[in-house]
Amino acid sequence: MDGVSIIGVGMIPFGKYPDRKLADLGWPAVKAAVRDAGIEPRRIQAAFCGTALGGMMSGQRVLGRLGLTGIPITNVENACSSSSSAFRQGVVAIQSGQYDAVLVIGVEKLTKFGGGTLPLEEEDWEVRLGLSMPALYAMRAQRYMHDFGLTREQLALVSVKNRKHGALNPDAQMRKPVTVEEVLASRAISDPFTLLQCCPTGDGAAAIVLSATSIAREYRSDPIQVLASDLTSGKFTTGFRDMTIPEITVRGAKEAYEHAGVGPDDIDVAEVHDAFSIAELLYYEAFGFCGRGEAGRFLESGSTTFGGTVVVNPSGGLLSKGHPVGATGAAQVVEIVRQLRGEAGERQVEGAKVGLTHATGGGISGFDHGACAIHILAR
Amino acid sequence: MDGVSIIGVGMIPFGKYPDRKLADLGWPAVKAAVRDAGIEPRRIQAAFCGTALGGMMSGQRVLGRLGLTGIPITNVENACSSSSSAFRQGVVAIQSGQYDAVLVIGVEKLTKFGGGTLPLEEEDWEVRLGLSMPALYAMRAQRYMHDFGLTREQLALVSVKNRKHGALNPDAQMRKPVTVEEVLASRAISDPFTLLQCCPTGDGAAAIVLSATSIAREYRSDPIQVLASDLTSGKFTTGFRDMTIPEITVRGAKEAYEHAGVGPDDIDVAEVHDAFSIAELLYYEAFGFCGRGEAGRFLESGSTTFGGTVVVNPSGGLLSKGHPVGATGAAQVVEIVRQLRGEAGERQVEGAKVGLTHATGGGISGFDHGACAIHILAR
Repeated sequence: MDGVSIIGVGMIPFGKYPDRKLADLGWPAVKAAVRDAGIEPRRIQAAFCGTALGGMMSGQRVLGRLGLTGIPITNVENACSSSSSAFRQGVVAIQSGQYDAVLVIGVEKLTKFGGGTLPLEEEDWEVRLGLSMPALYAMRAQRYMHDFGLTREQLALVSVKNRKHGALNPDAQMRKPVTVEEVLASRAISDPFTLLQCCPTGDGAAAIVLSATSIAREYRSDPIQVLASDLTSGKFTTGFRDMTIPEITVRGAKEAYEHAGVGPDDIDVAEVHDAFSIAELLYYEAFGFCGRGEAGRFLESGSTTFGGTVVVNPSGGLLSKGHPVGATGAAQVVEIVRQLRGEAGERQVEGAKVGLTHATGGGISGFDHGACAIHILAR
Repeated sequence: MDGVSIIGVGMIPFGKYPDRKLADLGWPAVKAAVRDAGIEPRRIQAAFCGTALGGMMSGQRVLGRLGLTGIPITNVENACSSSSSAFRQGVVAIQSGQYDAVLVIGVEKLTKFGGGTLPLEEEDWEVRLGLSMPALYAMRAQRYMHDFGLTREQLALVSVKNRKHGALNPDAQMRKPVTVEEVLASRAISDPFTLLQCCPTGDGAAAIVLSATSIAREYRSDPIQVLASDLTSGKFTTGFRDMTIPEITVRGAKEAYEHAGVGPDDIDVAEVHDAFSIAELLYYEAFGFCGRGEAGRFLESGSTTFGGTVVVNPSGGLLSKGHPVGATGAAQVVEIVRQLRGEAGERQVEGAKVGLTHATGGGISGFDHGACAIHILAR
């Protein structure tokens, strides 16, 4: 796949904005992305807005604030992959030849639900059984610890690393570094998880301007290429399912690598979906950054922090940057673009040339109802 | 535009299904469309699901019931235009060259809200001012009556016509014909509207299989061509706005006619968004079926019923077939395809060659936040 480039990115710092409307979260991110691209707003021909819980016509409400109206605006929902899926729609729209400049937005206001857990779908049988997200990921962590001897300290180290990264990111919701002891001593949520091993909820927005590669340099001298943009859904299976293998990500990674013509060794920087500490470790293996069962030691070795072979979640990830569900995928793209441009400041990954983003979610198990979007970007 | 065809359609009768889950509304429609296309399910490469209020991962839940998983599934929300917008995403996905067979779904379960009016967006300033949908359309009707001398009887005749059509449609929610006297004597809602001039709420689902035109005849001898598939959004304007001109539809119609290379005189059959009686009349003018101010007389002359120059809402429209918000646009396509294939039974429009669908909504005024999707189809 070729032909689509990123020419502008913007976001607002993730956090809690109970007094702002959804539209008022979104428009500053859009404005920042449009300015970053140096594009005249009237040259944007279509928009795709990812939101999971934003309510009807979120994209229209956001763009209405900027007078960016009268163009086709499509809202996309795919749970945690909402704006990642919206990004893919933008890529496909340019590939179709209908447009040469489109906008992608991710926006979410979770504080409207009053904090705590999110409203889940009552029709989901796993939800009705009480299998909430922390409970499910805790089961996966327990199994992984049993099978591969992962220690509680290694698990806590995911949060320590990502808080260390997030402390360097002005857009992160949680900017205080923490120690392994602090992680383990924080409030129990679902064993083995303590509070600091679960991503916070909050509000946020991020935006991206995509253009046909053929015209990208009219706007910026350093467009970022989209090498692959893949979306897949979970497969229905009965019988035994190994909870320590995130099948949807394994399959999605394989497809994305094929489409991009790169492999795990080519990835310099990755933003992966660390909703819970164990998740990041499972994804190291799913993306082939390390072998099966080796994720704990791979993390401990420093391979996934600055100076390592593949820096994972330099933004702080969901655990530190925050996880306003529908905004997360777009914000991951913002981070990778900044890294590839060399604009990431104190958290810059030296010499980063190829990066990936990974947002997965939906359904509780991530098996039957899941969606997983992976984008591979290069400078 | 060319290159995309419709090879299969299916729907469930619209109505109230309080005991069925959203997924159980959707899967029979999908199964019917897939059978109608004669396509093997595994050849479907992607799916787009339109729903306005279905909750997270609606498409994945529907397709999970059929084991149609592991493909990219994207949920699309654009209020009343949700599945019309999903249809457009399917068209664009094929135009991009990535797929040659995709599924479009529209599904909604409004009975979960307990009946009555829909949950509206509290951040919308018009909603906060109490400008509900019936109130807003009633203002437009009053203005139109004042400006053009439309009578209450002419207005009621929209419902009479559409109930007459719906009585012939086994998939319609309201199948009892009504008289002008019955319409005018029904309960007052917002003057000049009585109950029978407002579309009912309910549940429903519809599905469409799209393919690249180059392979369509492998599946059916009578594929229906997509001549145009256009989406637009409302334009922000300040100052005087003539409420009797649905600007978004006027602009959308112009674009769609240009893309399709046809004009109003070529349209044999149309499914338009008659959420309230006045709406259908405004759209006659927006689509150029008659001149400005002439809609009442045009309706009275019989031009928009069987035997007329353009049969509008042969399915019964929203007023009779029902309006499960996110399912409406897909069901409009189902109806036009059946008409163009000559499969519409008692409500067949003789010799129909070109038809259009029109779904518009979002925001209360349909100005700032609106979305409008128009598709022009031909045999």
